[in-house]
Amino acid sequence: MTGPEATTAADLEEKLALMEGTRSSFGGLSPKERAAVLDTIADALDSAGSGLVGLAMAESHLPESRLSSELARATFQVRQLAERARSGEQLVATIEPADDRFALGPRPDLRSVRVPVGCVLVFAASNFPFAFSVLGGDTASALAAGCPVMVKAHPGHPALSAATFEVALGALPTELREVLQIVFGVECGTAALLDHRIRAGAFTGSTEGGRALFDLAASRPDPIPFYGELGSVNPVIVSPGVVRERATALIEGYVNSFSLGVGQFCTNPGLLFVPAGHQILEKMVDVVRAVEAAPMLGDWVAERFDEHLDRLAQRGTVRAVHRGTASGLERSPSLFATSLSTIGDDFDLLNLECFGPSSLVIEYESSTQLLAFADRLAPSLTATVHALNDEHDFVRPLVELMVEKAGRVLMNGWPTGVAVSPAMQHGGPYPSSTASLYSSVGGNAIDRFLRPVSFQNFDDDLLPPALQDANPWGIARVVSGRRTTDSVERRGS
Amino acid sequence: MTGPEATTAADLEEKLALMEGTRSSFGGLSPKERAAVLDTIADALDSAGSGLVGLAMAESHLPESRLSSELARATFQVRQLAERARSGEQLVATIEPADDRFALGPRPDLRSVRVPVGCVLVFAASNFPFAFSVLGGDTASALAAGCPVMVKAHPGHPALSAATFEVALGALPTELREVLQIVFGVECGTAALLDHRIRAGAFTGSTEGGRALFDLAASRPDPIPFYGELGSVNPVIVSPGVVRERATALIEGYVNSFSLGVGQFCTNPGLLFVPAGHQILEKMVDVVRAVEAAPMLGDWVAERFDEHLDRLAQRGTVRAVHRGTASGLERSPSLFATSLSTIGDDFDLLNLECFGPSSLVIEYESSTQLLAFADRLAPSLTATVHALNDEHDFVRPLVELMVEKAGRVLMNGWPTGVAVSPAMQHGGPYPSSTASLYSSVGGNAIDRFLRPVSFQNFDDDLLPPALQDANPWGIARVVSGRRTTDSVERRGS
Repeated sequence: MTGPEATTAADLEEKLALMEGTRSSFGGLSPKERAAVLDTIADALDSAGSGLVGLAMAESHLPESRLSSELARATFQVRQLAERARSGEQLVATIEPADDRFALGPRPDLRSVRVPVGCVLVFAASNFPFAFSVLGGDTASALAAGCPVMVKAHPGHPALSAATFEVALGALPTELREVLQIVFGVECGTAALLDHRIRAGAFTGSTEGGRALFDLAASRPDPIPFYGELGSVNPVIVSPGVVRERATALIEGYVNSFSLGVGQFCTNPGLLFVPAGHQILEKMVDVVRAVEAAPMLGDWVAERFDEHLDRLAQRGTVRAVHRGTASGLERSPSLFATSLSTIGDDFDLLNLECFGPSSLVIEYESSTQLLAFADRLAPSLTATVHALNDEHDFVRPLVELMVEKAGRVLMNGWPTGVAVSPAMQHGGPYPSSTASLYSSVGGNAIDRFLRPVSFQNFDDDLLPPALQDANPWGIARVVSGRRTTDSVERRGS
Repeated sequence: MTGPEATTAADLEEKLALMEGTRSSFGGLSPKERAAVLDTIADALDSAGSGLVGLAMAESHLPESRLSSELARATFQVRQLAERARSGEQLVATIEPADDRFALGPRPDLRSVRVPVGCVLVFAASNFPFAFSVLGGDTASALAAGCPVMVKAHPGHPALSAATFEVALGALPTELREVLQIVFGVECGTAALLDHRIRAGAFTGSTEGGRALFDLAASRPDPIPFYGELGSVNPVIVSPGVVRERATALIEGYVNSFSLGVGQFCTNPGLLFVPAGHQILEKMVDVVRAVEAAPMLGDWVAERFDEHLDRLAQRGTVRAVHRGTASGLERSPSLFATSLSTIGDDFDLLNLECFGPSSLVIEYESSTQLLAFADRLAPSLTATVHALNDEHDFVRPLVELMVEKAGRVLMNGWPTGVAVSPAMQHGGPYPSSTASLYSSVGGNAIDRFLRPVSFQNFDDDLLPPALQDANPWGIARVVSGRRTTDSVERRGS
């Protein structure tokens, strides 16, 4: 981990002042203008793709194919957010003309629109050097909302972070170059989070780190929203029928999902519940053994992973079925097992995320035992059930419980792979997220950085364009409860 | 303040368990069923109106006309939220069918819908015994979202609180009677806020009290959203033209607004900025003197109000223009004055809300001086400017600043009177709100209690009704980006 030096306090102050200086002009862009800025950034990232991927390979040790497709995903995401910005729908422009005959007495002309919250601080993640880093989903959604963004770079890929930043900078119009800033170093990140100009924080990473930052944000004299997407165990529950009828496919899918990307995904399936008495573990071990070792993101990740495995292995209630290899940064998958009948009250450890290629298989005796246990699991980003078509009675109560415990519930699939889609919810109840009403991918990600403001009894020329009678931006608005792009006629003015 | 005794810990536990027990059945109601529950409650409150208003008069000392219209407003609000619930729009049902040819690789069927966050704790306010109390906007929006509600009653109107609760209880279907609970006492309120079954808090009241509760909510092992609508100073800026051409109307409007309801509104205009050298204060004093004294909500309000006036009067930089009368609970309006040229750095006190009939007039020398000062004001629920049609150059930079500092900006109007409207934003940046992305009146109030959940690759019969292919609830959904009430056809399944 070499790279740019930690940002000094003086440099931070300068960057904060510069970005704050662009807030008004950037926030004032029309939907089309802002979308164009994002599209230009996406194009520039694509053009610089091979160079960026090379840097990412050197720093993250992830393979080229994975990084190329991750970059494609990141630029797709920027363009999707550009499209959302262009639509103007995120502004929720709402117009209620004056009404002298309103039931509760005369009502003045009232119009509301969402405005950017102000400067946003984004903490980049290690495991997605493109999709959750300098120009990942958090940055893109804040920019799409009209907010300047300061990225606190992740120390796992500093050179890539600096290069990505430079590419984006080159794509920004000269007068808007200061809307994007980058800083390095933990201290600088926490200092920025406490600065009055920062109006929201976003983070993807560990529960420990995320909670510390959430606490800081809440402790401010003026608390700000902190959108933390934290660690997650992502339980998967397998029905008796699936083990009986398609064990091979299940095992392959499972091992592939928990070892994908060397297990370094927040949606990694950390727990697999299987019915007792099916010798599924024996079959699983062969598949696990066949997975080749691959390098983890860095020393600090590999060390924490090893420590986690050691702690699990020492746990009297947990059996190490297979301990993978460890050489330099390279790790091959490990597998642990236990059963609900032996685990007793010792499941605190199971609620801790394991960041790396390891998973825990837990045997259950009955549906009743399973439901009672699942009720005590901490919430996750995802929860999954595998079952046959004729096992819906088994599934139904589990799904009801999973909806309480996760942001995304899956049937007969694997949680790794987070579709960038308006129907995606990436963020479940705490601890998987500090703000489970929002998603950091797809869905309402852009809404995290927009604040509604009402304008009462305003002359047309003093209103923001989104609310002016003539609808100069041509966006969809809700006028007297009806969705329309029409202009508005005022009565008696 | 006599009335029900403080709820004991054992009673609190019982009530929490009861409401948690209804969470699933209440959350599972169809939009129409839930709307019907709310409509029935509104009808019952209207029917019990005269008795409730009588109780409210005895406990709040507010006049009958005000309380009757406040009750009408509260039931209108319940019905408006019922209508919103009925529409199903708050569910933001979003369907993205499986797509094998998606740009980033095959995409599974993904559908999202918003689900109730769980039990909600509402802290009632003193100053709106109907509209911000037991069945006020917070309770109604949580119920409309499908969340059971525990109300922590305000000690200012305990008998009314108990009676309102009983009326609502009588209107609830037998099997849902436990969705609404009421508790009394500060300790009980804070204990409930820390209970794991409570998933969100809502509050209207003082900055001090609200911040303490916000801190508690954020300190939990599992932090929950806390929607606090706190104190507010609500500055009003008057242009030179208005003072010159319509001083009389301005003065009458101002004095009426800050003394309305004995000044006990969170939207009370606490600061009036006027151009220097216009003798406007002299004219104002006559109008202030003419306002009759009226009783405040209770001892504790009157005492805090008197203390505030004493502190202001002792301030060397502030001049007591008129000190109103004080007798028992009755107070008549007071008026203070200062100028930007003499105030210097002593404006901390101006950022403190005065809850009662008093306001501070501040003279400014120039537009430049005004803008520099306004930039240092703490955010408020509202900010207002009064100007003539030919003074838009004066207004424009002020409005830009006000948008940063308030949830609602008004032209040539008064901030008291909060329209229950989809275009209303009641909540500005901190300290006026702990969650300025939401409004506690109209707007997105219901969204505060809904959490998105995605369902990936689900069989139709296991999906919640809002997401099933046939659209059994007939609600508007977004299918592949298009808003429709149509059913969905699956490809190849």
